[in-house]
Amino acid sequence: MVTTLLDRIGLLVTNDPTLGDGSALGQLADAALVVDARGTVSWAGPSAQAPAADVRLDAGGRCVVPGFVDSHAHLVFAGDRAAEFTARMSGQPYAAGGIRTTVAATRDAPDEVLAANLARLVAELRRQGTTTVEIKSGYGLTVHDESRALALARAHTDETTFLGAHVVPPEYADDPSAYVDLVTGPMLDACGPYARWIDVFCEDGAFDSDAARAVLTAGLARGLGARVHANQLGPGPGVQLACELGAASADHCTHLDDVDVAALADSATVATLLPGVEFSTRSPYPDARRLLAAGVTVALATDCNPGSCYTSSMPFCIALAVREMRMTPAEALWAATAGGAAALRRTDVGRLAPGSRADLVLLDAPSYVHLAYRPGVPLVTDVWAGRPPATR
Amino acid sequence: MVTTLLDRIGLLVTNDPTLGDGSALGQLADAALVVDARGTVSWAGPSAQAPAADVRLDAGGRCVVPGFVDSHAHLVFAGDRAAEFTARMSGQPYAAGGIRTTVAATRDAPDEVLAANLARLVAELRRQGTTTVEIKSGYGLTVHDESRALALARAHTDETTFLGAHVVPPEYADDPSAYVDLVTGPMLDACGPYARWIDVFCEDGAFDSDAARAVLTAGLARGLGARVHANQLGPGPGVQLACELGAASADHCTHLDDVDVAALADSATVATLLPGVEFSTRSPYPDARRLLAAGVTVALATDCNPGSCYTSSMPFCIALAVREMRMTPAEALWAATAGGAAALRRTDVGRLAPGSRADLVLLDAPSYVHLAYRPGVPLVTDVWAGRPPATR
Ligand SMILES: [Zn+2]
Ligand SMILES: [Zn+2]
Repeated sequence: MVTTLLDRIGLLVTNDPTLGDGSALGQLADAALVVDARGTVSWAGPSAQAPAADVRLDAGGRCVVPGFVDSHAHLVFAGDRAAEFTARMSGQPYAAGGIRTTVAATRDAPDEVLAANLARLVAELRRQGTTTVEIKSGYGLTVHDESRALALARAHTDETTFLGAHVVPPEYADDPSAYVDLVTGPMLDACGPYARWIDVFCEDGAFDSDAARAVLTAGLARGLGARVHANQLGPGPGVQLACELGAASADHCTHLDDVDVAALADSATVATLLPGVEFSTRSPYPDARRLLAAGVTVALATDCNPGSCYTSSMPFCIALAVREMRMTPAEALWAATAGGAAALRRTDVGRLAPGSRADLVLLDAPSYVHLAYRPGVPLVTDVWAGRPPATR
Repeated sequence: MVTTLLDRIGLLVTNDPTLGDGSALGQLADAALVVDARGTVSWAGPSAQAPAADVRLDAGGRCVVPGFVDSHAHLVFAGDRAAEFTARMSGQPYAAGGIRTTVAATRDAPDEVLAANLARLVAELRRQGTTTVEIKSGYGLTVHDESRALALARAHTDETTFLGAHVVPPEYADDPSAYVDLVTGPMLDACGPYARWIDVFCEDGAFDSDAARAVLTAGLARGLGARVHANQLGPGPGVQLACELGAASADHCTHLDDVDVAALADSATVATLLPGVEFSTRSPYPDARRLLAAGVTVALATDCNPGSCYTSSMPFCIALAVREMRMTPAEALWAATAGGAAALRRTDVGRLAPGSRADLVLLDAPSYVHLAYRPGVPLVTDVWAGRPPATR
């Protein structure tokens, strides 16, 4: 039984308001943390009061924050869409139909190619401080291709999401309701065992209110949790449907009216904002301040995907949240950690208090403020997923 | 005499229009590069035609671009201004007067503290692909403190800039013209030997047209080249003064009228845009398209400094240039490499053609487009400053 003391933390963010300064971030200066042999935090507090442990590591005065929880990512695909990006940046608008380009490439790809691309992206996220990641299917859109995507994703995370209802594939263009039958029938049968969540892209050009309801209720009936791509490209029924069905999260939330905001405030549904998408599609950002003012729980995630947003960087999303959505650095960090955990209905991650997993990030900075103050700079120097990296 | 062949480059950007596809970037697919024992490129061309060399390295299909040339950075200082950043993001405007906070901290700092902070930042820039960096003084504002800043900077780069005229220090608040006399007299005497360039912050609240002219002409008379902080916070005389005096670069160029643009187009003065500043101060971006349409040579740089922009990331500035200033990915890469070289009047860097220095970056991507397409992601995997890193 080896216990590890991480000592000389300049600033520790616990996300436990009962620790430290009493703020939502539960900040402690000159702090220390003890991790038990199972990779669980057993103690957090002032360095001067730290208990003994088998191994002592020195944080060198750096800031330590909970590992980022990226609750929205599309990582199982082949190819990229750099040419579409370049065209969009010179004025062509983003259209959801571009998803079909990636669907064709993904269907054509051997398992090994998909697995290698996925592993590369998961490692890239990890290096940038993400210790919990949700991974969606949605570029297969056949029974075989959706279930293989989820089986591949399952090798990397328990937070797998069946998104057969990402877009109607070309072969069902003339009969979209038959595609909904496929998604809610044989595809769900095949994918359910590999998935924790079901998701639907509820938007003009993708799935309307009735179709989205059919998909989500079928998933709920199988014991999956619900999440919704909602109100991204324009107003729509997605957010209210998510709240009505008790979805864990409504994601995007870019175009909301007062009823949508009230529905979120009155529900346990988290509003997950994905500002990398607005950056990469040159679109207006969601109104985070309105949501926060209404008491809605807000999460930040990357939406990492080859079309609308190919960033894998939670620090970049934090910088955007501060600059573009006027979240404070503290609100943005909370949303990228505890907020993401809430969007996945997890209490073991997104914080660094006794009982939580020792998923943490050491920053080459004295404060988490630097994640926004130093945009684009790779400040993540060490990432612990439950325990110190083997190289230490 | 060891020569090195870097082979299997998926896409090579040479910035030599006579090579490759004939565009400004001089792109070559499936390319190779030979570096001689002095760290100079001796050959660049198709992989299939590559000559023999003593050592062969494999780029694995990655994209190779010239090392970034960051022609505007303030790296000699102590402390940070994270609290000022947080206040600004919640609505307080950026004021040049904040520079004085850093001046006080820098004057108080021992040489070792300044040297360590500078070395840390230079290493951080290098890891992100910057192989040539200009470093300014400007946080000392005494004869002693300005000359020690430049002596420290000289240990890292030949591109040192005397910026005694950054802001009028508090002790001269009642007699700014006496401070200009100091800058153009004893301070220039002390700093000249360590500097290649002289610079002035020509702006309301800093130095007016007459003061800026006095500073620049004094520097030119000592054999220094001129550069100007011009038209950042509002319209002003800086750009036209820079063009009139033959400055290598007018930096910021945020508030320009038609006469300013015409002056730049008719001169050899480069317009250096610093979009990280507008990101970090939530200000309107310069109009890059207007400058490009007029035929002005445009450079991109970080302006890395603890006040208005604490990014050290040229890839981040490229992503901003594309998203916010509507430069194409190709224009942005050119501005961050060849453009920066032009702003420093260098022909040996910013390109990868026979005769140029083998300063290059290997990207974890098939194309330079990914620098904008994948914002915030650390794509720089290897950096050669004249030769392969010792670790290879
Ligand atoms: Zn998505
Ligand atoms: Zn500057």
